[in-house]
Amino acid sequence: MADRWAIAGVDLHLRPLGSRVRAGLEDALRDAVRDGRLATGTRLPSSRALAADLGLARNTVAEAYSQLVAEGWLVARQGSGTRVAGRPRAEASARPAGRSPDAGAGAAIAEPRHNLRPGSPDLGSFPRAAWVSATRRALAAAPPDAFGYSFSQGRPELRGALAEYLARARGVVADPERIVVCGGFAQALSLTCEALAARGARTLVTERHGLDTHRRIAARQGLATRPLEIDEHGARTDQLVEVGGDAVLLTAAHQFPFGVALAPSRRGAAIDWASDGDRIVVEDDYDGEFRYDRQPVGAMQALAPDRVVYAGTASKSLAPGLRIAWLVLPDDLHPHLLETQELLRSGPDAVAQLALADLIRSGAYDRHVRRARLAYRRRRDRLLATITREAPAVRVHGIAAGLHALLELPPGSSEAEVIELAASRGLAVAGLESFTDGPPIGWPALVIGYATPPEHGYTAALARLAAVLAQVS
Amino acid sequence: MADRWAIAGVDLHLRPLGSRVRAGLEDALRDAVRDGRLATGTRLPSSRALAADLGLARNTVAEAYSQLVAEGWLVARQGSGTRVAGRPRAEASARPAGRSPDAGAGAAIAEPRHNLRPGSPDLGSFPRAAWVSATRRALAAAPPDAFGYSFSQGRPELRGALAEYLARARGVVADPERIVVCGGFAQALSLTCEALAARGARTLVTERHGLDTHRRIAARQGLATRPLEIDEHGARTDQLVEVGGDAVLLTAAHQFPFGVALAPSRRGAAIDWASDGDRIVVEDDYDGEFRYDRQPVGAMQALAPDRVVYAGTASKSLAPGLRIAWLVLPDDLHPHLLETQELLRSGPDAVAQLALADLIRSGAYDRHVRRARLAYRRRRDRLLATITREAPAVRVHGIAAGLHALLELPPGSSEAEVIELAASRGLAVAGLESFTDGPPIGWPALVIGYATPPEHGYTAALARLAAVLAQVS
Repeated sequence: MADRWAIAGVDLHLRPLGSRVRAGLEDALRDAVRDGRLATGTRLPSSRALAADLGLARNTVAEAYSQLVAEGWLVARQGSGTRVAGRPRAEASARPAGRSPDAGAGAAIAEPRHNLRPGSPDLGSFPRAAWVSATRRALAAAPPDAFGYSFSQGRPELRGALAEYLARARGVVADPERIVVCGGFAQALSLTCEALAARGARTLVTERHGLDTHRRIAARQGLATRPLEIDEHGARTDQLVEVGGDAVLLTAAHQFPFGVALAPSRRGAAIDWASDGDRIVVEDDYDGEFRYDRQPVGAMQALAPDRVVYAGTASKSLAPGLRIAWLVLPDDLHPHLLETQELLRSGPDAVAQLALADLIRSGAYDRHVRRARLAYRRRRDRLLATITREAPAVRVHGIAAGLHALLELPPGSSEAEVIELAASRGLAVAGLESFTDGPPIGWPALVIGYATPPEHGYTAALARLAAVLAQVS
Repeated sequence: MADRWAIAGVDLHLRPLGSRVRAGLEDALRDAVRDGRLATGTRLPSSRALAADLGLARNTVAEAYSQLVAEGWLVARQGSGTRVAGRPRAEASARPAGRSPDAGAGAAIAEPRHNLRPGSPDLGSFPRAAWVSATRRALAAAPPDAFGYSFSQGRPELRGALAEYLARARGVVADPERIVVCGGFAQALSLTCEALAARGARTLVTERHGLDTHRRIAARQGLATRPLEIDEHGARTDQLVEVGGDAVLLTAAHQFPFGVALAPSRRGAAIDWASDGDRIVVEDDYDGEFRYDRQPVGAMQALAPDRVVYAGTASKSLAPGLRIAWLVLPDDLHPHLLETQELLRSGPDAVAQLALADLIRSGAYDRHVRRARLAYRRRRDRLLATITREAPAVRVHGIAAGLHALLELPPGSSEAEVIELAASRGLAVAGLESFTDGPPIGWPALVIGYATPPEHGYTAALARLAAVLAQVS
């Protein structure tokens, strides 16, 4: 891809952002709108045409347009394509030209924003009062050394609370001494990949459908990745022997984005593969707390604590902004990982760790998770009812758990067209292809994050989704 | 160095901890004491003998002994060497055998601990009440997206507050858009080294006296390091052209550990060197807030904002446990650095960022720094008066600023012997040699962190130091 290109006759500079292609495209477009190179009302090329020009997947362009429509930079109207929106005045004057608009474009957007992209809990439900109380209690009780450099592994108060919680809620075999607290899952995965590489690993197998960032994090630590297919029983761990590799990353409780739970036989196959060849399973238990229809699916870590790295996070249960995740490690990875953690001291802030420990110990964490589970279950039920009623040709998958569902579009539909149609209604959605390693799998689908909107915005978001899907069906 | 060795007839296993030799030695000794392999009263070999056996520097062994004496694992008595202390009962029963004792050995130590090692502010003076108030106000005002994944660069509220503060207090030319908030200085340096490497840098010049961790962080990002000598005008930046390299890391305001400020001509030489060859200066302004005797020494970043990466931190002004540092970046490093930060999402917790922004905006941060500056200045004055009175043969350097002083011991003294003597009085101190890249420079000195003890413990710590030094002089 060229790093300088023209759109609607305007020269745009794409910053060297590696594989962050969609983000780079969005940035370049925002910059051009902000500094006036793309004037209000300018009609942009179709996503198909621009994708062909730039050598990108059409979904990439469609999703960038959709994001910018949701942010109010562009407007999309059926029949008249995508155009540059009227310039949000407050936004434009508050910030110097040519700079990234991350400082709260939301405050000045021209269009109502509806967001059903996956990956976020309802940020409006973060338990602010409980968090302040927990912080106050934690600070009153903290020994002075809590504010010091020590405890790269994480505060002992939090590791103790997590060990009990994980055993109780997720069936994890968790000795506090084998827990390392990290600054979010991405960092936890990065540390794990570094420790795997230090142990001699060269290749990490990843699910063929998942987050590209995980593959990029592995690559940054020198690990090659190979894809593992997925079917209705979860990742094809029965194929691990053929696929090869030194470790595998699995979303066992709730595959992202397909939403299936890894079947018992598949769990066994993964563990056998790991045990037979001194290999490691990394279990990404990102939303294990949220299961609606039957008993929770326990973590697979308990099957072989010496072969499985268990990774959990507060990003879905509380909020991503807390930057807290945790690893439960096999003995032989623990020293490698701790060495990096001690060098970079990259664990999260001690006050937040103590507050979370207090929240867990006091029962407030469980209460919050129960409340959230009820709320998300209700949203899921409404999503299902709405689709069944308004767009019966759309099949809904992966709804037993978690914060997202997979909506299989009727055969022959185009993901990119549906994304653009949604954008024209002010609704941001994601397509399955964005989460696919390698060529598309031949059936179009949307990945709908029903936890993302604030509670008061869910009805409107759902109505727009229904209207879009009714038109497709 | 062997990774398995015997001490006092007991076989010890040293975990593969790379260059963390002293920490590894300490861990191995703690493990052996904890699980009873080294029984109470066992006499350890002298630091000289053990250092020779293991192929280590004598200071490394002496400092490990000293640390373990301070923690209560060992006792050192003049004339009878270093012995294994009575096993702290609470500590031993609370934790499974053979595990790392990081979970608060301080609570159960057998000996009073006095610590004058450098690197920490007085953790007991962390403004807990002000922090809780700031957290409460910040959470009440935060937009929901504060709890989300966005803002890898750092919360705009904090970047705005920092830009004003840094301009006012440190003379930094700081556009909020060029600030990146990081999870502590080690992480900030790691991100900077990664961005330098991505920009084509191969070699980072570091001050010959400083923290070894900085060199290790550079090495982890593939940068070789070369040492730069230091004299009474600071780092010999006039030698940079001969030394070579693509970037230089400088503690300009207050050299660690010598304590000198980089002279204006040396600042100019560094900037010229950077400008002439498209090179970068990384300015580690770790304790710039603390200057006692004259006007603050401003940051050198203002001389050439396009050549200097400015790094500041809340670790000394508030507490290391907050894990908050900040970078002010030249344009051409900013995208590289942000790309990693967006991938790893390794910035600090949003609540802490908002609380710090509130603390700065409300004036509470300035008040805290002023109070701390007064308290540390008083400690420094007492240190100086005590040494002058009790140990006039010891020369004190680097006292105009910061949280540490360099105590030059009389010619012919042995750093290791003084460290051991201090340990025998229950006092942990560090020698200059620990902060020296390459061979010792030929004059023995201690690096005394006078901010480290709690306020109520400073008198006793100082008395022990005076007694030790009086004996040496």
